[in-house]
Amino acid sequence: MSIKTDCLIIGAGPVGLFAVFELGILGLNCQLVDNLDKIGGQCIELYPDKPIYDIPGLPNCTGRSLIKNLIEQIKPFKTEFHLSQRVDELKKNGKLWHVKTTENKVFETPNVIIAGGAGSFEPRKLDIKNSEKFENKGLYYAIKDKFFFQKKNVAIVGGGDSALDWTLEMSTIANKVYLIHRRDDFKGAKHTLDQIKKLVPQGKIEIKTPFLPIELKGNDKLSKLLIEDLNKNIEELKIDSVIVFFGLKMDLGPIANWGLNIENKLIEVNTKNFETSEKGIFAIGDIATYPGKLKLILSGFHEAALASKECFLNAKPNENLVFQHTTSSTEIQKRLGVK
Amino acid sequence: MSIKTDCLIIGAGPVGLFAVFELGILGLNCQLVDNLDKIGGQCIELYPDKPIYDIPGLPNCTGRSLIKNLIEQIKPFKTEFHLSQRVDELKKNGKLWHVKTTENKVFETPNVIIAGGAGSFEPRKLDIKNSEKFENKGLYYAIKDKFFFQKKNVAIVGGGDSALDWTLEMSTIANKVYLIHRRDDFKGAKHTLDQIKKLVPQGKIEIKTPFLPIELKGNDKLSKLLIEDLNKNIEELKIDSVIVFFGLKMDLGPIANWGLNIENKLIEVNTKNFETSEKGIFAIGDIATYPGKLKLILSGFHEAALASKECFLNAKPNENLVFQHTTSSTEIQKRLGVK
Repeated sequence: MSIKTDCLIIGAGPVGLFAVFELGILGLNCQLVDNLDKIGGQCIELYPDKPIYDIPGLPNCTGRSLIKNLIEQIKPFKTEFHLSQRVDELKKNGKLWHVKTTENKVFETPNVIIAGGAGSFEPRKLDIKNSEKFENKGLYYAIKDKFFFQKKNVAIVGGGDSALDWTLEMSTIANKVYLIHRRDDFKGAKHTLDQIKKLVPQGKIEIKTPFLPIELKGNDKLSKLLIEDLNKNIEELKIDSVIVFFGLKMDLGPIANWGLNIENKLIEVNTKNFETSEKGIFAIGDIATYPGKLKLILSGFHEAALASKECFLNAKPNENLVFQHTTSSTEIQKRLGVK
Repeated sequence: MSIKTDCLIIGAGPVGLFAVFELGILGLNCQLVDNLDKIGGQCIELYPDKPIYDIPGLPNCTGRSLIKNLIEQIKPFKTEFHLSQRVDELKKNGKLWHVKTTENKVFETPNVIIAGGAGSFEPRKLDIKNSEKFENKGLYYAIKDKFFFQKKNVAIVGGGDSALDWTLEMSTIANKVYLIHRRDDFKGAKHTLDQIKKLVPQGKIEIKTPFLPIELKGNDKLSKLLIEDLNKNIEELKIDSVIVFFGLKMDLGPIANWGLNIENKLIEVNTKNFETSEKGIFAIGDIATYPGKLKLILSGFHEAALASKECFLNAKPNENLVFQHTTSSTEIQKRLGVK
């Protein structure tokens, strides 16, 4: 069953949220997809408590308070959020776009607004022999269910807090945990590292530094990880699973393969309505590029307003679009629930 | 003595104010001119207490509160406001623009940002024989000093509150006041009209309705006003002054004669930096037009940001412009006085 909507918005950051508002006052409904598990995009993920000074009319705000205000602003519109999944496939069917997410939700819509910021947050991958072959089959970049690793031999790769925290946690679940890092020093909390070091003598944790993973081995099933030290000495670890914590990076993901004009991981749009090279597909906010583009949240707001107008024309080809100001339009105020 | 500045902003509405902010965080100073006697433009003049719903991140604001916030936002920058005057002459001198106001202030600047809204508020003029000849020499559209009219014979033309209020007030100052209106009904407050009617028997006020002014007469000095009733009967009033209150209209004023590309009273700009057909002259906000333009305050904010960047390049041709976010730039935060 596909979900029919006037507009699918990809990205629940400030610009995607304001697009909900602009579509809403035009009487359009929308659905929102985001790869993160919460609303707010980079504002919440990267700088929730840092002040932002250049939101016009908001001399003092933070990533968190801006998102809070925008969520309040779109409250009159009952928008559905589809979090923890990213858009995957895009197909054209007549005048409609069919978009499928990684959780197999399918949307049918005349308009897709990509408000994806710098792309979706993706784990940095391990790039060694057989790493693609074993991805999700022994090699993991996140832990969905820690008990999956019960009684297994696990290698955790990385030097940050995620690697340290999970080494500690996994030592109570797995049979054996190898902590592998390319340096002797860890970026993660010293306190956690001290706890790990105390457990080493018990034999459940082994710290391997400075070591680089160089190859995964196994037939159907992952069985070995080869690591190499600075003198090119190679060790072979018998493991069932390798979990890599190299941090997150921004990635366009499958959107890069949608046939849009892309330049330096940015989507080219026109400045009239921020439509891409494909009719009905728009890009706004940091992911969009055009002559003069500045990656400012306030520019994304402007882009959302102009794109929404074109969405209306696509969604309601037989209706007239009358430009109205919110301060004087009783029609808009009715949609906003103003009494 | 001319005032040297990095940028002259014309118009102290929300968009002009935000341009001050965007220029300020780039380290540029600016001066601001507005024809009104206060800061805030249409927000304050036309809808100070009406709610505005589409300022992003400000679900509840009014014209007044938005202006208050913007004034707070630009407080770190010591901007000089030149109110109650409008820009008049524009001349190019090398790479600099010389701009003169109606109060004879002269600015010397590489950048002029026109953030003039729908134009400056101008009184609607009386268009009859000799009305141009006697403008400011017997014929007036505003009262700067009411005692100028002491002991004179004055005709007040109009049917609104301004006409009624001044008729009442002038009856205590002038020798005789004629109140002339094209209808018998007045738009102004009934209470004021009743007060005026009570004074008529004393002979200081005479109400002439329905009458249309048709001609001013006089040699050097205005001496007569001819008025005509519905049956084309003409009366000749012996007067020294005519004061017309036909309300305000929006007018581009002298800007219309600056050689910019103008279409339907709007100034054509590009969408890369909102520069007009003249290098160093920008138009932002409601007065600007380009493909897709919507007259939204939030669009003016975007236009201010992009124009300011180009202003920097014009004002500091030998310096590098590094794009920075306010949330992470210590340089910007220093300019904002953040501790």
